Amino acid sequence: MAKFSFEDHPHRRYNPLIGEWIQVSPHRAKRPWQGQVEKIEEEKRPEHDESCYLCARNTRANGEVNPDYQDVWSFKNDFASLLEDIPTGSFEKDGLLKAESERGLCKVIVFSPRHDLTVPEMPTADIKKVVDLWAKEYAELGSKDFINHVQIFENKGAVMGCSNPHPHGQVWAQESIPDIPMKKQKAQSAHYADKGTSLLMDYLKIEQKEQERIIFENDHFVALIPFWAVWPFEAMILPKRAMSNISEMTEEERLAFADAYKRMTVRYDNLFQCSFPYSAGIHQAPTDGQAHPEWQLHMSFLPPLLRSATVKKFMVGYELLANAQRDITAEGAAARLRELSEKHYKG
Amino acid sequence: MAKFSFEDHPHRRYNPLIGEWIQVSPHRAKRPWQGQVEKIEEEKRPEHDESCYLCARNTRANGEVNPDYQDVWSFKNDFASLLEDIPTGSFEKDGLLKAESERGLCKVIVFSPRHDLTVPEMPTADIKKVVDLWAKEYAELGSKDFINHVQIFENKGAVMGCSNPHPHGQVWAQESIPDIPMKKQKAQSAHYADKGTSLLMDYLKIEQKEQERIIFENDHFVALIPFWAVWPFEAMILPKRAMSNISEMTEEERLAFADAYKRMTVRYDNLFQCSFPYSAGIHQAPTDGQAHPEWQLHMSFLPPLLRSATVKKFMVGYELLANAQRDITAEGAAARLRELSEKHYKG
Ligand SMILES: O=P(O)(O)O[C@H]1O[C@H](CO)[C@@H](O)[C@H](O)[C@H]1O
Ligand SMILES: O=P(O)(O)O[C@H]1O[C@H](CO)[C@@H](O)[C@H](O)[C@H]1O
Repeated sequence: MAKFSFEDHPHRRYNPLIGEWIQVSPHRAKRPWQGQVEKIEEEKRPEHDESCYLCARNTRANGEVNPDYQDVWSFKNDFASLLEDIPTGSFEKDGLLKAESERGLCKVIVFSPRHDLTVPEMPTADIKKVVDLWAKEYAELGSKDFINHVQIFENKGAVMGCSNPHPHGQVWAQESIPDIPMKKQKAQSAHYADKGTSLLMDYLKIEQKEQERIIFENDHFVALIPFWAVWPFEAMILPKRAMSNISEMTEEERLAFADAYKRMTVRYDNLFQCSFPYSAGIHQAPTDGQAHPEWQLHMSFLPPLLRSATVKKFMVGYELLANAQRDITAEGAAARLRELSEKHYKG
Repeated sequence: MAKFSFEDHPHRRYNPLIGEWIQVSPHRAKRPWQGQVEKIEEEKRPEHDESCYLCARNTRANGEVNPDYQDVWSFKNDFASLLEDIPTGSFEKDGLLKAESERGLCKVIVFSPRHDLTVPEMPTADIKKVVDLWAKEYAELGSKDFINHVQIFENKGAVMGCSNPHPHGQVWAQESIPDIPMKKQKAQSAHYADKGTSLLMDYLKIEQKEQERIIFENDHFVALIPFWAVWPFEAMILPKRAMSNISEMTEEERLAFADAYKRMTVRYDNLFQCSFPYSAGIHQAPTDGQAHPEWQLHMSFLPPLLRSATVKKFMVGYELLANAQRDITAEGAAARLRELSEKHYKG
């Protein structure tokens, strides 16, 4: 029998950041697809849309009027999942029913007054203003004493549940450390306690040597497909130096981060020649007042598309009930993204 | 300030089966929805479809001809994610890159020769044949010595990535215990070691006393919304007696299980008057040759719809990166499902 190989044979890979496995079925990409196809949204949008609740000067459903902002803008989400002023309390029954009130707040981060743009179409200098605002929000929200975790993220595309194409992201800040960041907290702490080094810095060294999963890099950041990626074209942007949170970035690093964010999303758009949907977010140290030398900031991109602009990977059935599963290898995905141009297909 | 209440205030609930939290934002169901809406698929299907690869007597893409089956039928998936005959091997680098070959096999379980039916429209006696086949597959696949876990599941509806409306499910059997069943294994073992009782039997007792989250029951099974449910109308069917796997069910219990499966899915269809999409699956003891007194079989239903036949809950952004989140309470969802008729809306 042939030798076991990543490219040809079903296998599992371990994700040391969260302590879980991902099942890889490289041979399965060949199956025909007869299921649901997504709509391509390629209508040309106006620079300003009267009916958009994020465009400058428009009135939102609650009667508030948006400021005449010129670059970026943030405000408290009108339909926030987390609230600041709630009565606190908890509930417990035989250790099996357990609940606790959860304080927090949710903000919307508007990336640009231009309704018709997306990150890959924005100038790097303008994306840097988004990074600056993220840093400000992380610091401000994180300094409140009831906020121990700040999650910065972006949902892009209707297929990702994004209800407005105006370029924007969100920040959810809260009392508890959410499940996934908590797993990363534990894994990085254990690694740091054991080796005195950061898990992701050690990981990056391996990737820099192997080069196989690296997509591109600039002076301060590397973009790669993690060995344990779940989504078909899942990617990660990692700083080259130790950095536990975004407020540690220098001006130059913020510009380099904006550059990486743009180049990553341009490649995504070019992959299937469409406005590539994804959820992306930054994982970084909790804002619990402790030092977190174990934490390495990283930005994850979780895009659903698998084969084309209209065929996505469904995380259902087996994946929801048993185990994450993917049909192409991380190495194959990296190779495809690496060979793409960094000039946006729309020109 | 008002007292903390589940119905009004954001809170977290603990899932003792997997050791994770779910964030509940009961007030958030009020936000307007301007995002993607799903297509309703209500075309009338023929009883037999020439182009369906699951209908009796049809020829599949690989040239095989389907048997003239009369009730249920199973066969090896033509595009299996897991394969039996692969070279074995493993890979490791500094504890950070870790992979292992994974043997297994995937089968398709066809529920009925009728292309136009779904489980809620099938007679209970015919659904019992599906249960019988599940029991047979669990026992047969589980007895192979390279199979330690058997995942039985059903993806229903195009929105759940199901590529064929012909009523069917799948079985993925494999060497390793997948991530979610492994978490349930650990939690149930710990509870059993600690208390000498089964976690889910103890949980059921609380629910039977409170009644608040119970949807319906029959002589042998209870259908409820778990206290820690993630999906808006997530439900669980639990046996009333200790039962680690499906081969332990008596004839009478299998019929009662079929009855519960039907009644649950009829209520689902009636909720938004549509063919209700979901992923469902049975979690049960691993087939690793060990006794598993800690394990209690249960069937989980994970349906995506939130507000109507066309508006689903998107598990994106915050949910993918940080924490599961829901907008209605388990108690509210149970109340709505409880009050629905068990007569299918199509009559
Ligand atoms: O096997 P199917 O029905 O073609 O595929 C569907 O179910 C599988 C198992 O849950 C998933 O891996 C696929 O993403 C989904 O599209
Ligand atoms: O807040 P939005 O963009 O309306 O809503 C979207 O993102 C949220 C945060 O990831 C999710 O909870 C919602 O399910 C999704 O539709």
